Amino acid sequence: MRDSAGPTIYDVAERAGVSKSLVSLVLRGGVGVSEKRRLAVQAAIDELGYRPSLAASALAGNRTHGIGVLIDDYTNLWFVNLIRGMDDELFGQRFSLTVADTQLNAHLGRSPVEAFLGMRVEGLVIAAEPTPDVIDALTGPGAARIPTVVAGGRAGVIPGADVVAIDEELGSRLAVEHLVSLGHTAIAHVTGLGGSAANRLRGYERAMGDARLTPIVVGHGLETTEEAGFAATREVLAGHPTVSAVFTANDTMAVGALGALRDEGLSVPGDVSVVGYDNSPLAGAHLVDITTVDDRGASLGTEVVRALLSRIADPSLPARTTLVPPTLVVRSSTGPAPR
Amino acid sequence: MRDSAGPTIYDVAERAGVSKSLVSLVLRGGVGVSEKRRLAVQAAIDELGYRPSLAASALAGNRTHGIGVLIDDYTNLWFVNLIRGMDDELFGQRFSLTVADTQLNAHLGRSPVEAFLGMRVEGLVIAAEPTPDVIDALTGPGAARIPTVVAGGRAGVIPGADVVAIDEELGSRLAVEHLVSLGHTAIAHVTGLGGSAANRLRGYERAMGDARLTPIVVGHGLETTEEAGFAATREVLAGHPTVSAVFTANDTMAVGALGALRDEGLSVPGDVSVVGYDNSPLAGAHLVDITTVDDRGASLGTEVVRALLSRIADPSLPARTTLVPPTLVVRSSTGPAPR
Repeated sequence: MRDSAGPTIYDVAERAGVSKSLVSLVLRGGVGVSEKRRLAVQAAIDELGYRPSLAASALAGNRTHGIGVLIDDYTNLWFVNLIRGMDDELFGQRFSLTVADTQLNAHLGRSPVEAFLGMRVEGLVIAAEPTPDVIDALTGPGAARIPTVVAGGRAGVIPGADVVAIDEELGSRLAVEHLVSLGHTAIAHVTGLGGSAANRLRGYERAMGDARLTPIVVGHGLETTEEAGFAATREVLAGHPTVSAVFTANDTMAVGALGALRDEGLSVPGDVSVVGYDNSPLAGAHLVDITTVDDRGASLGTEVVRALLSRIADPSLPARTTLVPPTLVVRSSTGPAPR
Repeated sequence: MRDSAGPTIYDVAERAGVSKSLVSLVLRGGVGVSEKRRLAVQAAIDELGYRPSLAASALAGNRTHGIGVLIDDYTNLWFVNLIRGMDDELFGQRFSLTVADTQLNAHLGRSPVEAFLGMRVEGLVIAAEPTPDVIDALTGPGAARIPTVVAGGRAGVIPGADVVAIDEELGSRLAVEHLVSLGHTAIAHVTGLGGSAANRLRGYERAMGDARLTPIVVGHGLETTEEAGFAATREVLAGHPTVSAVFTANDTMAVGALGALRDEGLSVPGDVSVVGYDNSPLAGAHLVDITTVDDRGASLGTEVVRALLSRIADPSLPARTTLVPPTLVVRSSTGPAPR
């Protein structure tokens, strides 16, 4: 059957007046092929616009050099830096990245991991909070044994996979210690659903405990959206009028907090300091300009690539965990506690 | 050579004690295969975790049902709605989507279009401002003749490709007419680099001309960022003190405009009204809450899928252009012109 996507190797052979095997030989480097026949094949390839198929290459026993990256949702900008970091670290390597989010192709009723396996990728990066489908494809009976790295704090542990995690507990500790150093004692935390929010909450609670301060937590069970950040901050202001600082589970929620404070006529940071998490592009906008925790996603990408290439080279390596420390970016939304 | 990604069809045949051809037959539906042998093959597939390769399937003359979507940049949230719309429209179809941005795998020195062709996708959606590499892969000598749809206002015309475009000129007209209806006459536009910004600028200039108002344009040559929106709005305020409304090329620039107005002590919309473009998630945040143009990306996705499936079914169809009209979302950043 003719492939609607373009000419086949048979078309090239026919045009060049040679055998298919000779075209294959030229494509593999052409050792032992006469210059005249090599040029004839090259001319036929150019004229027809023939592209050697990755599929054919893989079936011929060649490696695909493909890496599949599974992310949560394209609207979560967290992963952009991860992928940029991976791309940079792959400079000079032959590996190529393919990205899918857990929602993509949901209409096929198939996990994106299945699609990656169908492409015969040589390694997987799980940067998403894995759905049951994904876990099943990776760990269930008959699961493929494919080199896998779990990136970020989102996925749980997958047997045999390396983990390159952000030290989100440390990120929260940096935020709390910054506020404590400014004299704040009534520091509320706005949390939400998901593994990252849980890690950040744990870090907040431990840092507050170490500073001998009482945690004030709102937002359990909320999505980590701007609207939820707005509503939860209103709840903080109503229930805890002495609060002088609000630390939110992400920057999007912090924008909601800024809206709630403005609506109450409170100034930032004069009346209330605000700290976000993620150092998203939004965090640096003049209107927003919040102090926030930077996960250093690009550094994460570097470590992920190193772990994955090591595992592809030697699948028998014991699973390792690497923690990437975050940093605090201080902007105008935090200041001394009001007296 | 053994495939590191998992067992092969030969492993399945060996485990089931049958020939490779019989395994193939079972995978293709198993007509004429005895129940006993079918069950033996199925058991071997389950035990080994064998996954039929898409590569093998494509080489066997089967269709890949793959669609490649090329986007500008993962940080541009514009495309998320496009992909959601495409996904929804593909419900019940066998086609699967693969997304790449023009930067991905830049380290390989290869256009993402090449990668899509290597995957033997059956159709392409170009939602990016195409780089020379991309144009060359699609139109140069020896280019593959693959069904292609250009989505949005970003790409120029590619010979033989359908275009499903947003009517961005109409979007700007809606913004200007809304401001005129509120009594504004000194309406500035903040533009920037890129095809979308150019379309939006043209629509602004025509609508201002039709209303017999003088265009005031700043931002030529700037990136369409928050920082640029901030700087350009300061320029407007310094050079045109009578301006009572600022319309920006996108929502990100509008957030910059809000920051510049706040820093000047001007209230929105009391002193100056602000209109953005894109109806991004940010536009609806309490702190921002801007009137904006909604491109209806999901509707675009629907039209893109319809055009592409028609073209895959009949590549000889003449190229068509479909324009999707945008809508205006009115929020609290626009009000009557001050007297």
